[in-house]
Amino acid sequence: MQDYVIGIDIGGTMIKGALFGSDGALVEKRSEETRVDRGRDAVLQNLIALIKSLLTAKGQMLSIGIGVAGVLDPPKEVLLQSPNIKPLEQAPLKKLLNEALQLPVFLENDANAAALGEKWAGAGRELDNFLLITLGTGIGGGFILHGDLWAGENGKAGEIGHMVVATDGILCACGKRGCLEAYSSATAIKRMAQDAVQSGACSSLKNLSRGDFSTIDAEMVHQAALQGDAISIDIFKQMARYLAIGISNVNNLLDIHNFIIGGAASNALEVFRSFLLEEVARQVYAISQSKIKITASQLGNEAGIYGAAYLALKSVKPPDR
Amino acid sequence: MQDYVIGIDIGGTMIKGALFGSDGALVEKRSEETRVDRGRDAVLQNLIALIKSLLTAKGQMLSIGIGVAGVLDPPKEVLLQSPNIKPLEQAPLKKLLNEALQLPVFLENDANAAALGEKWAGAGRELDNFLLITLGTGIGGGFILHGDLWAGENGKAGEIGHMVVATDGILCACGKRGCLEAYSSATAIKRMAQDAVQSGACSSLKNLSRGDFSTIDAEMVHQAALQGDAISIDIFKQMARYLAIGISNVNNLLDIHNFIIGGAASNALEVFRSFLLEEVARQVYAISQSKIKITASQLGNEAGIYGAAYLALKSVKPPDR
Repeated sequence: MQDYVIGIDIGGTMIKGALFGSDGALVEKRSEETRVDRGRDAVLQNLIALIKSLLTAKGQMLSIGIGVAGVLDPPKEVLLQSPNIKPLEQAPLKKLLNEALQLPVFLENDANAAALGEKWAGAGRELDNFLLITLGTGIGGGFILHGDLWAGENGKAGEIGHMVVATDGILCACGKRGCLEAYSSATAIKRMAQDAVQSGACSSLKNLSRGDFSTIDAEMVHQAALQGDAISIDIFKQMARYLAIGISNVNNLLDIHNFIIGGAASNALEVFRSFLLEEVARQVYAISQSKIKITASQLGNEAGIYGAAYLALKSVKPPDR
Repeated sequence: MQDYVIGIDIGGTMIKGALFGSDGALVEKRSEETRVDRGRDAVLQNLIALIKSLLTAKGQMLSIGIGVAGVLDPPKEVLLQSPNIKPLEQAPLKKLLNEALQLPVFLENDANAAALGEKWAGAGRELDNFLLITLGTGIGGGFILHGDLWAGENGKAGEIGHMVVATDGILCACGKRGCLEAYSSATAIKRMAQDAVQSGACSSLKNLSRGDFSTIDAEMVHQAALQGDAISIDIFKQMARYLAIGISNVNNLLDIHNFIIGGAASNALEVFRSFLLEEVARQVYAISQSKIKITASQLGNEAGIYGAAYLALKSVKPPDR
C-alpha cells in the first residue's frame, strides 16, 4: 500500500496544496484564495478545508508539510512575522493544525521549502550544494548545503535580496539602502523600464504598453527584449550586473557553484544569463570561474508545494532519493 | 600513554608549529623563517626539519596537520595557488611530506585552519556556527557551520574580504573594485590615516609618526584612537561601517549570529565594536539584532597551529570535545 504526504504553500494571495505519493509523484493539486481580508479564523478554516479535501483513504497519510511566507520561530511552530499574511502572525500554526487534522504537521519558510522542492524533484536533484534565488516582487532564497536545507539559527537564512550591494544605494522596500532587491527584482525591472520611457527613451515598450506606462511590468520588458528592444535589453544587463555581484559574493563566501533562478523573472533568464555569467566571471576567483552554473527552476511556482511535501516525508521517514 | 599531534602554519614570512597532546594541551612550540627567496627545496627542508624537531618519543605520534596560506586542490593534496609562498605552488605537499615523515599529513587553507582552532580551543568553543574574520594586511575568513568547518567545493570558502560592498568602489589588491578588504583591512586603515594627515588634518598621528607619515600603520592609528584622537576614531568608524555591511550580509544570507574577529586589527576591536554593532543593528532583520555577537579571537596568531593540530587529530580519531 502506498504512503502519502501533503505539501502546502501559503502565500499572501493563494493557498496551494497537493497530495503526493512517498515516491514523489504528484497525485492531486488544489488551490484557494488566501483572503487575508477575512481575518485569522477564515484563513485557517480555508486552509484546513483545502488540506482535508486532499486527504486520501487509498493509503496511509504520513504527514503534512507547510511552506509559509514569513519568519517562523526557531522550533517552527509559530509564525512570528509575515507582512503578506498578517492575520496569521503570532498564530501557533503547528498546534492548531495538529489538533484540527490529527496528523503530524511540519512548517518551513516558503523560500526554504522551494529550495527543498528543487532538491527533491527539480533543478537541484543532482546537486549537494546550491542557492535557489527567487526573483519576483521581492528577492528571496534558500540554501541547500551538504544535500540538506541550511535554514540558519532562526530559520531565515537565504535572504540574498537584502544583501547590500551598493552602499548608500537605492532605497529598498525593507527600509535599507542598496539591497540587491532594489536592483534585480521584477519590481526593479519595472521601475527601470517605467523611468526609461518616462524620460523619453525610444523603446518598443511605448507601443507594447499602448502609451499607458503604468502597465509596464517585468514580463513586458522581457517580451520587448526578446523582440530586440535595446532599452529593455539594457535593463536586463543592469539587473544582471547586480545579481552577479550577489552571486559572486555568495561564491566568495561559501564556495558553492550552483545557483537556481526561480520566481517570475526567471522566465527571462535566457535574456540575461550571458550578462550574468560574464560579470560573475569578473567577480570570482579563477578556480571558480568555469564551475559556476546558473540554471532555471524546474518546478516554478510549484517548488514550494513539492518542498513542503518533501519536508513532511523526510520528517517522518528517510526520504526516497 | 599520551597520543600526540603536530600543528603547522605556513605563512609567507614564518613557519610556525607546535606539538599538542590529544587533550589539546600545547606541549612545545617552534618557528622558523619561511625564506621563500631560497626556493622550493630549501623551504621544504626547513619545514621538514621544523616538524622533525617537534616529534616526540614520549607517546604515539598520530598525525600532522598543516594550514597553508593559499588555495589547495579539492582533495587537499596540492597547493594550487599561493601569492605569498610562490615556491610551493603546484607542489604535491601531501605526498612529499607523507614520504619524508612517514606519518599521516592533512592540509587545509590557513584561514580555515584558524577557524578550526578557535572552535577547538578558542573563542568558538561553545559555538555551533560562526565566521572567523581575520583583519590583517588582507581580510580572510573561515566558517564553522553545524560545529564543523565549511570549506566549500574548492576549499576556499570564507573569502569575506572579497565580498563587494560598494559597486565601482575603491580598487582592491585583487583587481576588483569595492571589496570589503579595500575598506576594512589593516592596510585600509593605514591608507585612510596617511591620506588624512597628508591632506592636513589635525591629528596626533602627526606627532606619533614624528612627521614621517610612511610609518603610520593600523596599530599606530589604534594607539591614537585610544588617546582620543578624533581623526583616528573616525577612521575606525569608517572601517567598521563597511565591516558591518559584510557581517550583515552574512547574517542575512546564513542567519548565523556569531562573528570572531582575528588578525592584527583585532587588537583594536574595543575601539570599533560599538560602531560595528550599531551599524549591524541597522542592517539586519529585527529577529537577529539582539542576537549578533562580535568577539575577539582568543588564540590570535596561534589559531592556525591549533586548528591544524585539531584537523590532524579529528582526521585520525574522534576529537575530545
